[in-house]
Amino acid sequence: MSRRPDSPGSATVLEELAARASALDAGDPLAAQRERFVLPDGVVYLDGNSLGALPAAVPEALADAVHRQWGEGLIRSWNEHRWWQAPLRVGDTIGRLLGAAPGQTVVGDSTTVHLFNALTAAARLRPARRLLLTDPGHFPTDVYIADSVARLLGLEVLRVAVDDLPRCLAERGHEVAVAGYSPVDYRTGELYDMAAVTRAVQGAGAVMLWDLCHAAGALPVRLDELGVDLAVGCGYKFLSGGPGAPAFLYIARRHQDAFDQPLTGWNGHADPFALRGEYAPARGVERARIGTPPILSLLALEAALTAFEGVGMDQVRAKSLSLTGFFMDCADALLDGLGFTVVTPRQPHRRGSQVALRHPEAYPLVSALAARGVIGDMRAPDLLRFGVNSLYVSHHDVLTAVRHLRQAVTLREHLEPRHRQRAAVT
Amino acid sequence: MSRRPDSPGSATVLEELAARASALDAGDPLAAQRERFVLPDGVVYLDGNSLGALPAAVPEALADAVHRQWGEGLIRSWNEHRWWQAPLRVGDTIGRLLGAAPGQTVVGDSTTVHLFNALTAAARLRPARRLLLTDPGHFPTDVYIADSVARLLGLEVLRVAVDDLPRCLAERGHEVAVAGYSPVDYRTGELYDMAAVTRAVQGAGAVMLWDLCHAAGALPVRLDELGVDLAVGCGYKFLSGGPGAPAFLYIARRHQDAFDQPLTGWNGHADPFALRGEYAPARGVERARIGTPPILSLLALEAALTAFEGVGMDQVRAKSLSLTGFFMDCADALLDGLGFTVVTPRQPHRRGSQVALRHPEAYPLVSALAARGVIGDMRAPDLLRFGVNSLYVSHHDVLTAVRHLRQAVTLREHLEPRHRQRAAVT
Repeated sequence: MSRRPDSPGSATVLEELAARASALDAGDPLAAQRERFVLPDGVVYLDGNSLGALPAAVPEALADAVHRQWGEGLIRSWNEHRWWQAPLRVGDTIGRLLGAAPGQTVVGDSTTVHLFNALTAAARLRPARRLLLTDPGHFPTDVYIADSVARLLGLEVLRVAVDDLPRCLAERGHEVAVAGYSPVDYRTGELYDMAAVTRAVQGAGAVMLWDLCHAAGALPVRLDELGVDLAVGCGYKFLSGGPGAPAFLYIARRHQDAFDQPLTGWNGHADPFALRGEYAPARGVERARIGTPPILSLLALEAALTAFEGVGMDQVRAKSLSLTGFFMDCADALLDGLGFTVVTPRQPHRRGSQVALRHPEAYPLVSALAARGVIGDMRAPDLLRFGVNSLYVSHHDVLTAVRHLRQAVTLREHLEPRHRQRAAVT
Repeated sequence: MSRRPDSPGSATVLEELAARASALDAGDPLAAQRERFVLPDGVVYLDGNSLGALPAAVPEALADAVHRQWGEGLIRSWNEHRWWQAPLRVGDTIGRLLGAAPGQTVVGDSTTVHLFNALTAAARLRPARRLLLTDPGHFPTDVYIADSVARLLGLEVLRVAVDDLPRCLAERGHEVAVAGYSPVDYRTGELYDMAAVTRAVQGAGAVMLWDLCHAAGALPVRLDELGVDLAVGCGYKFLSGGPGAPAFLYIARRHQDAFDQPLTGWNGHADPFALRGEYAPARGVERARIGTPPILSLLALEAALTAFEGVGMDQVRAKSLSLTGFFMDCADALLDGLGFTVVTPRQPHRRGSQVALRHPEAYPLVSALAARGVIGDMRAPDLLRFGVNSLYVSHHDVLTAVRHLRQAVTLREHLEPRHRQRAAVT
């Protein structure tokens, strides 16, 4: 590969980027948080937006949960080790990261299950309205569940992009029961204005439901301050709670006594151990409990959340923007002319905690990168996604990733057959 | 305590019972299975019908899942360690214990969530019928979910005891869409005739849904042989999968293509990673997947199930009946005149894998027993429950438990204030 001194990838450009990475990492107030995670040697992990890395506190907490709590405590641990309280206790811990005062967040089940409860309960809060709004670019499960709830309740789903919401609400806002959106586009990383959308939806008299899967633990959300009605999100992306970690549901206090969910499980009963024959929901957010939650996964999530102790979400956000901004600078400097397009917005207030690049060979490129120890992921058909978790990703990691991407594409590694076979999960 | 030679609790009676226990344990073909569990010293654990003991295979499997699969494999483990396949893989393993051929059982979520999907889908299989039947003595979550599904679909729930089913079906069977029952009464341990109930329900043209929480791992179920339509059950009782272990759903193959569930999560989509905007269910039981399952809890359950390797459910049943029969003999011999009534049926074919005793001081007695290292549980208002898991309970354990119960009540330990405080979970 011939290089001119100032061409992309030249020694001078690389030295400049490396010097910037060093300076940014040296001034990073969150640099020490990386010690709170166990990351394999030789791996740059930029897929924490899909599955967060292993927090160092988890193995010991889980071993304790298994040996001492389950093995020795047996059934008594529901009381003595406070398993019963875990959904609300862990909920409050997540609530702190979301700007939610205690007593409004419950953990257990999956995002999909919480969405079903939340959308149904939201529609029941607005019984005279018959439209559910969802984003056609939403993560699929959100759209599928909206369709299912509409079918059960005899309502109609409108797929309205965020940018088209004002017009839709102006025309049909009085018919809208609930609008379910995500502040971050899971493909492009575009960030929407939660405050403006919440105001617009509530201004039309509808219930605002946010899916925070790609926001929780990645940026400040300020649920209480924005007056959000309902929110859900998973525990396994930026919260690093482990594969399939239980999800959370936030119910603003003012809605709790009227929150009327379809999954009326015994854990959410007002007097669960009386084992009564008629359902009566518990007071407060506790009513959003369903069946018995997966305690081992829940305690792993609880231990994982200790990685956020002493960390402000504003710090997380500042570093995340620094990392994604630096990623785009590296991409500009090193990937020019190699067929990539940065699709994540350049303006800081318009991007979440990931950078997405468009390239027609996205899948084999992600595979070739993984073989080099850089783990990102892709979304069909042509997006490479690189998520940055401020607690364990450095600017040097970002530079390393983009350098490897340049080398992989320049050396045409993505054309090798081994990188062209589609795996089941990407 | 004065004793006549042949009075209850006399040395002669105790010697005879101890000799019987020794003989039964010596001839127990499952005795060696106890090595597959980690049980604390000095504890007799008779609450495996609520939370099974810790299988010895779990800690290492979970440590591997955390360190090697999550920590090192990171997102790649969805493929490389086959996390994606776990719900069906573990489902097939449970299916073997239920007499279900592969491809009909899926694991994930809670019993409550599966019940919701199953009852709704069952009602949709019989769109012209408007009755749901459930047992007034059912575990509460089953009844609550039936009421919720009926409300959503505009149907009606009838609470009909098992013994009244024939009359109800004769009168209104043509209106019944689905009947949801448990083969074992969770309070008394009474076992119903699954074959007869299934025949009666299906004979009326309705869908048969069994809740197997108190049967799975405890006795042979023979789902395929009986032609059962749908079944659910938890993973944490006799399957010993850990606190809140994921639950299972069985869908007989003939119903799978028409199984139309309300929780249309992306994991159950025909092409989940294409991330399409419209739901299309997967073929087969895979459509009953919902959101991302709690993998750590799911892998703990998978490891726990290895305790059943090489064990026939007929062996499990034979030993269970021997244990519960011996328990009742011990109770007859040692608890006579102390205020207890055995409420579990004496006939072997009419009892599950637990013995329930009625006593007005049930709660403080269970507490006093626990202080002596014998762990059972109670159900309000007056039932003491003693579950026996054939894989780790011995006849000597049973005798020890009943002896302690006799001593506790004779010494009036249940009248001590510390045993009279009601804990949150019993």
